[in-house]
Amino acid sequence: MKIRIGILGYGNLGRGVECAVRQNPDMELVAVFTRRDPAHVKILTDAAKVCHVDEAPEWKDKLDVLILCGGSATDLPVQTPEYAGLFNVVDSFDTHARIPEHFEKVDEAAKAGGKTAVISVGWDPGMFSLNRMYANAILPEGKDYTFWGRGVSQGHSDAVRRIAGVKDAKQYTIPVESALASVRAGENPELSVRQKHTRECFVVAEEGADKARIEEEIKTMPNYFADYDTTVHFISEEELKRDHHRIPHGGFVLRSGVTGWDRENSHLIEYSLKLDSNPEFTASVIVAYARAAFRLSGEGAVGCKTVFDIAPTYLSAKTGEELRASML
Amino acid sequence: MKIRIGILGYGNLGRGVECAVRQNPDMELVAVFTRRDPAHVKILTDAAKVCHVDEAPEWKDKLDVLILCGGSATDLPVQTPEYAGLFNVVDSFDTHARIPEHFEKVDEAAKAGGKTAVISVGWDPGMFSLNRMYANAILPEGKDYTFWGRGVSQGHSDAVRRIAGVKDAKQYTIPVESALASVRAGENPELSVRQKHTRECFVVAEEGADKARIEEEIKTMPNYFADYDTTVHFISEEELKRDHHRIPHGGFVLRSGVTGWDRENSHLIEYSLKLDSNPEFTASVIVAYARAAFRLSGEGAVGCKTVFDIAPTYLSAKTGEELRASML
Repeated sequence: MKIRIGILGYGNLGRGVECAVRQNPDMELVAVFTRRDPAHVKILTDAAKVCHVDEAPEWKDKLDVLILCGGSATDLPVQTPEYAGLFNVVDSFDTHARIPEHFEKVDEAAKAGGKTAVISVGWDPGMFSLNRMYANAILPEGKDYTFWGRGVSQGHSDAVRRIAGVKDAKQYTIPVESALASVRAGENPELSVRQKHTRECFVVAEEGADKARIEEEIKTMPNYFADYDTTVHFISEEELKRDHHRIPHGGFVLRSGVTGWDRENSHLIEYSLKLDSNPEFTASVIVAYARAAFRLSGEGAVGCKTVFDIAPTYLSAKTGEELRASML
Repeated sequence: MKIRIGILGYGNLGRGVECAVRQNPDMELVAVFTRRDPAHVKILTDAAKVCHVDEAPEWKDKLDVLILCGGSATDLPVQTPEYAGLFNVVDSFDTHARIPEHFEKVDEAAKAGGKTAVISVGWDPGMFSLNRMYANAILPEGKDYTFWGRGVSQGHSDAVRRIAGVKDAKQYTIPVESALASVRAGENPELSVRQKHTRECFVVAEEGADKARIEEEIKTMPNYFADYDTTVHFISEEELKRDHHRIPHGGFVLRSGVTGWDRENSHLIEYSLKLDSNPEFTASVIVAYARAAFRLSGEGAVGCKTVFDIAPTYLSAKTGEELRASML
C-alpha cells in the first residue's frame, strides 16, 4: 500500500512535487487541486486526478498527506491552518519572521483535527536550518554564516519587473567569493550585507525605454538593491529566454567554532547546495518530509512539527536496520 | 539543575569530552572513571572526582549520562553493553561493519535496565552518516561520495610504527583534489580507492635503520597502503614533535542526484568538516547527544538509538520556540 499524496497548487513547486513523488516507489500521486478550471490544467501523472480546490475536503479519507504548494505571502498563512485540520499536511512556508505565528496557528488546527503538520520544509528554511541547528549544538562557541546563490531570486526579479519600461527581468544573487574564503580560513570576519552578496540583473527593456534611468532605479531601490553592489545587463527577450529560463539556486551554511580547554582548536562545518532547479529540490525535501508526516501520524504524533522535531530516520524509505547497516 | 556527566576512559577523547562539557552551561562533569590508579590521573575540572572504573556502578544514581571514551576494538564492545544497563550512555563505536551487532547488544542491555543508549556518535559514524542519510532521502536517484582528510589516521600511524626500525610515525590521509572536483562538477565519476585518497607518512627511523626497506614495507603493506599512492618522508624526532603533534582531520560527504520528469536537473549536496582536533570535535558531538540521551530518558525512550533516531531539537540547549525563532 503506497503513501497517497495530494498536491494543492500546481505551479513550479507543485510540478516539482509531482516529479519527486515519481522517484519514490513507496508513494503515489492521487490528486492535484487547483484554483483554475481543472479541465485546463494538464498534469504529468496519468493515474492522478485534477480537481478544483473546493473539492479537496471530499478527499479527506482518500489521501495520506496533502502537500501545500502555494506561496508564503498570501496562500499558506490561510491554507495550511485550513487544511491541517482535515489532512496530514506539509508546506514550505518561508517567511522566516512569521514562522512562530504560522506554527501556532497550524499546531492548533492540526491538534483539533488529530493530524500531523510539517511546516517550513525545503532548503531555507529546511536543510539550511537543520545544519545551522546541528552545528550550533555541536560547537556552542562559534559564529554562523549563511550565503545564498548563485541563484535566481524570484522576489528581486519581480521587483525589477515592476519598474516602468522593464518588459522582463531575472535577478541572480551571488555570494562574494573572498568573503566565503575568509570564513573558510577561520578568520571569523564581520561581514556587511554588501560584503556577503552581489546582485546581477538581466533586463529586457521596452522599446524606447530609458535604460540609464532603469539601471539607476534598480541600483537605488531600497531593501532590494541599494545595500548591494549590483550589475545590470540589458539583453534581448530571446537571450533572456535562451540563457535564463532555468531556476538554479544554492548556497552555503558555515559555522566556525572553537574547542579545547583554552579554546585552542578551531573547526569549520560547511554545508552547501548547488541546485539546477530550486523548486524541484525544494519539492524533493518536501516529499521526504511527507513520508515522515505519514509515519508520525500513524504513531499518533499530532500537531505541528518542523525539521527540528523529526528524527532523520522518518524521512527514509529504508528501515532502521537497513540504515544502520548501510549508512551509519 | 545541570545534566550530570561521567566520563569512562581518560585519553584524548575523554579529555575532549571534559573540555566540551565546560562549553555547555547546562552540564557539569562530576566524575571521571579510569583503569589507572586514580591518584595518578590529573584532570582539568576541579569540581569533578577521579575514580577507579570498578567504582562506576556505585555512581548509578549520581550521573545522568555516562560517556564511554574507550576504543572500538576491544573496550566499547564490552563496556557499552555492560554500562547501558546501569546508566544512560553515549559511545563513539566506529567499526562500521560491526555496528548492527553492537546495536543489538546495547539495545538489549539498555532495555533491561530501562536506560537510553546512543551509539556510534561522532563525525564518521555520526555527522557524516546523518548527511548521507538526509541526502539519500532527499535525492533517491543519485550517487554518494565520502572523502576523508586531510587528517591523521591513528590506525595507519600505528601500522607504520609496528615496522621494524620505525621509532615513531604519523600518517595523513589526503583526498585527491581532482577527484573531489570531478564530483563537484557533477561528473559522477567511478573512483577507485587509489583515485580518491593519497597517503603521506612522516617517519622517525631508529638510528642505523634501513630507510629504503622501511619505505618499501610501508608502500607495499596490504590493506593499509598497497592500494594507495603513498609518500614517505623521513624526519627527525624533533620535527615530528614540532610539526605533527596535532590530530587534525576532516572530510567531505557529497551526494549528486537528479530530479525532474526526465531527470533533467542535477543537484549537489555537500557537507564538509575541517577540524583542528579530531578527538575534541568528536567529543563535542558526543556531548550534544548526551543532552539528547538525558532528555529521551526523561521521556521514557529506553533502548539503543543512533543519530538517525534522534530528532535534532534534542541536541540543543534551546527550546523548540527559541529554535524556531532564531534558526529556522
